[in-house]
Amino acid sequence: MKAEMKLKEIGLELPPAVRPVANYVSAVRTGNLVFLSGHGPVREDGSMITGKVGADLTLEEGYGAARRVALVLLASLKGEIGDLDKVKRVVKLLGMVNCRPDFVDQPKVINGASDLLVQVFGDKGRHARSAVGMNALPMDISVEIEMIVEVEE
Amino acid sequence: MKAEMKLKEIGLELPPAVRPVANYVSAVRTGNLVFLSGHGPVREDGSMITGKVGADLTLEEGYGAARRVALVLLASLKGEIGDLDKVKRVVKLLGMVNCRPDFVDQPKVINGASDLLVQVFGDKGRHARSAVGMNALPMDISVEIEMIVEVEE
Amino acid sequence: MKAEMKLKEIGLELPPAVRPVANYVSAVRTGNLVFLSGHGPVREDGSMITGKVGADLTLEEGYGAARRVALVLLASLKGEIGDLDKVKRVVKLLGMVNCRPDFVDQPKVINGASDLLVQVFGDKGRHARSAVGMNALPMDISVEIEMIVEVEE
Repeated sequence: MKAEMKLKEIGLELPPAVRPVANYVSAVRTGNLVFLSGHGPVREDGSMITGKVGADLTLEEGYGAARRVALVLLASLKGEIGDLDKVKRVVKLLGMVNCRPDFVDQPKVINGASDLLVQVFGDKGRHARSAVGMNALPMDISVEIEMIVEVEE
Repeated sequence: MKAEMKLKEIGLELPPAVRPVANYVSAVRTGNLVFLSGHGPVREDGSMITGKVGADLTLEEGYGAARRVALVLLASLKGEIGDLDKVKRVVKLLGMVNCRPDFVDQPKVINGASDLLVQVFGDKGRHARSAVGMNALPMDISVEIEMIVEVEE
Repeated sequence: MKAEMKLKEIGLELPPAVRPVANYVSAVRTGNLVFLSGHGPVREDGSMITGKVGADLTLEEGYGAARRVALVLLASLKGEIGDLDKVKRVVKLLGMVNCRPDFVDQPKVINGASDLLVQVFGDKGRHARSAVGMNALPMDISVEIEMIVEVEE
């Protein structure tokens, strides 16, 4: 339970995994890869962080939103594989930032997720990623991230 | 041919698979995974459903467009693997909705694709997915979806 | 070194691979797949091609930017696998074009990358892809592309 102890050390707790109410799921495992759905920034009270980063939210708030997304992704990942210590490597993130056409600091926002993953998993948490701007996201959430993870057999 | 019979039951017919006229292809298989290109909503007459959902199109029309995209994806998938009954699991969709910056119902649009996949494949059709907003898509198509599918060896 | 000879034949040289200064990496290999981060259009002098295609840049300049992205992706790929001739198949591109809401020629832009990949790898370079419009990209780069490649064991 090293990964979850790391989370506790930095003052974070895995939220309960949420099950989508539609014909899709939070995660699908195929071979040693787990493909996680796009997740949003759920606060501890269950509400969503919404608005466009750089306009309705500051960069720092955007960073915090991406950090929450990473935490929610880890909750779904645990729901799929049972134990976060089975993570062999975080492979890839697609980090999508809700923003206006002139916003250019998407990487600084998505660092909120990348930093948390490395805090939790160390070098295994270092991933390939894209950090891009979106004109609109579901429910006006500020950040949406999807993730691919390699897990032990 | 269970998958194609399911399609017939719900009144749909696979369109002919279309081959892109450029240096890319509709689908690439690597191991047991098939990665499908982003596909658009082709009508039965071969024309494209275009315009921004929530502005030029209603939500219901967007749902219908996503359903058409799923059908076209299945046509390309059949073109790649020969028989849709070889599908072991639909792994992941990236569902992109052409919309304005204030549109927030991307999931309800992409449900058009998710619902069809579950109608055709049952639980094997349940996938991870992201449903996001795009400011612009090729030829102004209303929906573009790319898909990853696990197939039998 | 056939792939690099092809590059030389068409007058291109691999730039040095760049290492991101953050908690992510340019590429992650898992099994026979290499997932490459979203890369941007770096000029020979190290500067970035920026601006919205169709507004600040012409379509031709956008094509050229996508071609540069492909070259930079190949540099990162070589950094990961050592030798580009280990490429078995370019599997998938997600090609993202920085543009305004009325731009519809994303495929013609991303062809700049697709054409280079086929020039370098022949049929192994033919890939699945999506070519889509983004309202904003990091540092206002004109094109960002992420890539999945299958390599020899």
